[in-house]
Amino acid sequence: MDARPLQELGRRAKESARALAVTSRTTKDGVLALAADLVEQRADDILAANAADVDDARDLGTAALDRLRLDARRIGQMADGLRALVALDDPVGEVAEAWDRPNGLRVERVRVPLGVIGIIYENRPNVTSDAAGLCLKAGNATMLRGSSSALRSNVAIVGALREALIKTGLPEDAVILVTDTSRATAVEFMRLDGVIDCLVPRGGHDLVASVKEHATVPVVIDGDGNCHVYVDRAADLAMAENIVTNAKMQRPGVCNAAESLLVHQSVAAQFLPRVQRALAGVELVGDERTVGFLPGIAPATERDFAAEFLGPKLSVAVVDDLDGAIAHIARYGSGHSEAIVTADGDAAARFCREVDAAAVLVNASTRFVDGSELGLGAEIGISTQKLHARGPMGLRELTCLKYVVHGDGQVRQ
Amino acid sequence: MDARPLQELGRRAKESARALAVTSRTTKDGVLALAADLVEQRADDILAANAADVDDARDLGTAALDRLRLDARRIGQMADGLRALVALDDPVGEVAEAWDRPNGLRVERVRVPLGVIGIIYENRPNVTSDAAGLCLKAGNATMLRGSSSALRSNVAIVGALREALIKTGLPEDAVILVTDTSRATAVEFMRLDGVIDCLVPRGGHDLVASVKEHATVPVVIDGDGNCHVYVDRAADLAMAENIVTNAKMQRPGVCNAAESLLVHQSVAAQFLPRVQRALAGVELVGDERTVGFLPGIAPATERDFAAEFLGPKLSVAVVDDLDGAIAHIARYGSGHSEAIVTADGDAAARFCREVDAAAVLVNASTRFVDGSELGLGAEIGISTQKLHARGPMGLRELTCLKYVVHGDGQVRQ
Repeated sequence: MDARPLQELGRRAKESARALAVTSRTTKDGVLALAADLVEQRADDILAANAADVDDARDLGTAALDRLRLDARRIGQMADGLRALVALDDPVGEVAEAWDRPNGLRVERVRVPLGVIGIIYENRPNVTSDAAGLCLKAGNATMLRGSSSALRSNVAIVGALREALIKTGLPEDAVILVTDTSRATAVEFMRLDGVIDCLVPRGGHDLVASVKEHATVPVVIDGDGNCHVYVDRAADLAMAENIVTNAKMQRPGVCNAAESLLVHQSVAAQFLPRVQRALAGVELVGDERTVGFLPGIAPATERDFAAEFLGPKLSVAVVDDLDGAIAHIARYGSGHSEAIVTADGDAAARFCREVDAAAVLVNASTRFVDGSELGLGAEIGISTQKLHARGPMGLRELTCLKYVVHGDGQVRQ
Repeated sequence: MDARPLQELGRRAKESARALAVTSRTTKDGVLALAADLVEQRADDILAANAADVDDARDLGTAALDRLRLDARRIGQMADGLRALVALDDPVGEVAEAWDRPNGLRVERVRVPLGVIGIIYENRPNVTSDAAGLCLKAGNATMLRGSSSALRSNVAIVGALREALIKTGLPEDAVILVTDTSRATAVEFMRLDGVIDCLVPRGGHDLVASVKEHATVPVVIDGDGNCHVYVDRAADLAMAENIVTNAKMQRPGVCNAAESLLVHQSVAAQFLPRVQRALAGVELVGDERTVGFLPGIAPATERDFAAEFLGPKLSVAVVDDLDGAIAHIARYGSGHSEAIVTADGDAAARFCREVDAAAVLVNASTRFVDGSELGLGAEIGISTQKLHARGPMGLRELTCLKYVVHGDGQVRQ
């Protein structure tokens, strides 16, 4: 669809971002509602394009094919996702802080769009509309670089979004799909300095590693979740069982699912057999003390404790005390979401203070760490880095603060 | 001083960061006060080390030698800088936001240190104490990698800081100087994933470019300042003259000094000769229309309009109107600080909204864009990127927000 050279696409995205930055909420909401309608109206075309993509991608694995495949329900979800953005407050223009200086200067920090957001992703076509919609609501232009296997699907979806922009009188290049899916172009994309204000990779380890290696533009990493639940000496064990099973099993394939269970030695004998029963169907691997309590399970390796299984497997360790739990998490955790189950307020406070992660939870499942569950609305990912955005990245994380200073002629002494 | 391998230094910094993150304000302030005293007490040693550095660096330019050279006054400034941090509020522990969810979860966003901050810098030894002091006050460990030409000075200064840590009972490795100043180690330093949570380069173009090229850790760029003053049709010309001369001449070598003057065509005939007189000693270069009003000045090239002169030179352009000024800044600006002089509130509002920069100013000098002038206290630099920190980076920008979620057994449905 768009064979213009990348630099030219970048120039157009940047220009469109300037227009979008000063577009009213009403207009942006109009585009989103119209885009949702167009996605539904063109469902047949999108599904046909997707069927062609799926046909050509037969040698991808089943999981990858499942991510690639669209159906009427998924089309409906894409449209609903765009419509849901209409209800969310526009973060742009918010005065986050303001103060006066002794010399009479008035200082404000005003929320503004980031500008051009780059999304580099794998073969989930729904990322195309989800990401572009979020970026647009926050006043940003989007450059999308999806995988070649989803190209026809992405072209069809982006076509609906761009038509909605045109029909609303906005520049269509506020949403650009990079159709050259060569590896060289991917690397060039990560190095569009002066164009891409924020690059968000959406995908697995290899994609994230490649972005870290090659990108020169600012990046927010949606990283791994090796999340722990620590069952403290003072835990209510029924609550602990409930939280562990929910954190592990409610949706094992996502980043905020638990991958590791830590149990205080004084409750291990009582809790481990009980949680093993509750986790029927989950493969447990454990350290030496755990195997002592649960003979028959395999010993856990260093690799197991560091792993994000994303499936029905859980590593288990018995720890001496709270310090042992905190040290284990410091060593193996990925800085995503870490939970403690305890009735001891001091232990909870220390856990919250000393565990270094995007989110720490007391007596609640790690599964709550996402944008909608925390009340932030839709999100573009969950950041495990500390700069800019830590945790769920909603609309506000797609903006930044600009200093606006009002004077009446002040000069510096 | 410290010949341990970089990975080992990183491990120690990370461990020290965990201790520092839970250290009270009183203790941190004690370290800073003691470090200030030690820097002064050891002034002779530091000056002797610096003299040896300067002796070996005779073939650096005069400007570089001036940056490298310490004297009693500069030692005093370093100590005062550390003492000034004592008075600043500790950002750590602040609950930035809190809300309740319908299911009873209590969500807080709590300000916590970033962890390990890497500073890579050139030959200003004062950066050593300034940066380490700021990072420490915000609860972070610091890894410093200065230039080989300042090595002995840096070793002496870091010695004082580390002794203050030890005497206060904190881990000395909360401040680490990397003494291997090879280029290979610099690159390895920029790639200490899992150790450095934020890398701040302090130096010129080449250093920043190298960091952008090689770094895999998160970076905040303290970038160029190609700052503009736009004198609008509705400007008070006496105020404009005052602001332009202040922005250009009060301290021309710094990033928030003006490098370019834009003048509305309807006031150009009146304002340009006047400002030329006021800017005596400053070399002006101008576009065709400017040269028409100021015969005798050289024509400005594209390069001039893009340049950060950091000295007594100013590029000048006459623009048709506010749109012309905004377009010029969009094309040539570096996103640092941009000022408009106008009595027209609508023009000011459009300028503030449409100019994409860390700071926009109305009727005030660009020179106000720094941490202390804006009331933020000391700063580690002025960020021209949009992620995490935009504008002056004070103590708060050396922290991040962690989600802390309190429940009473909630699991996800």
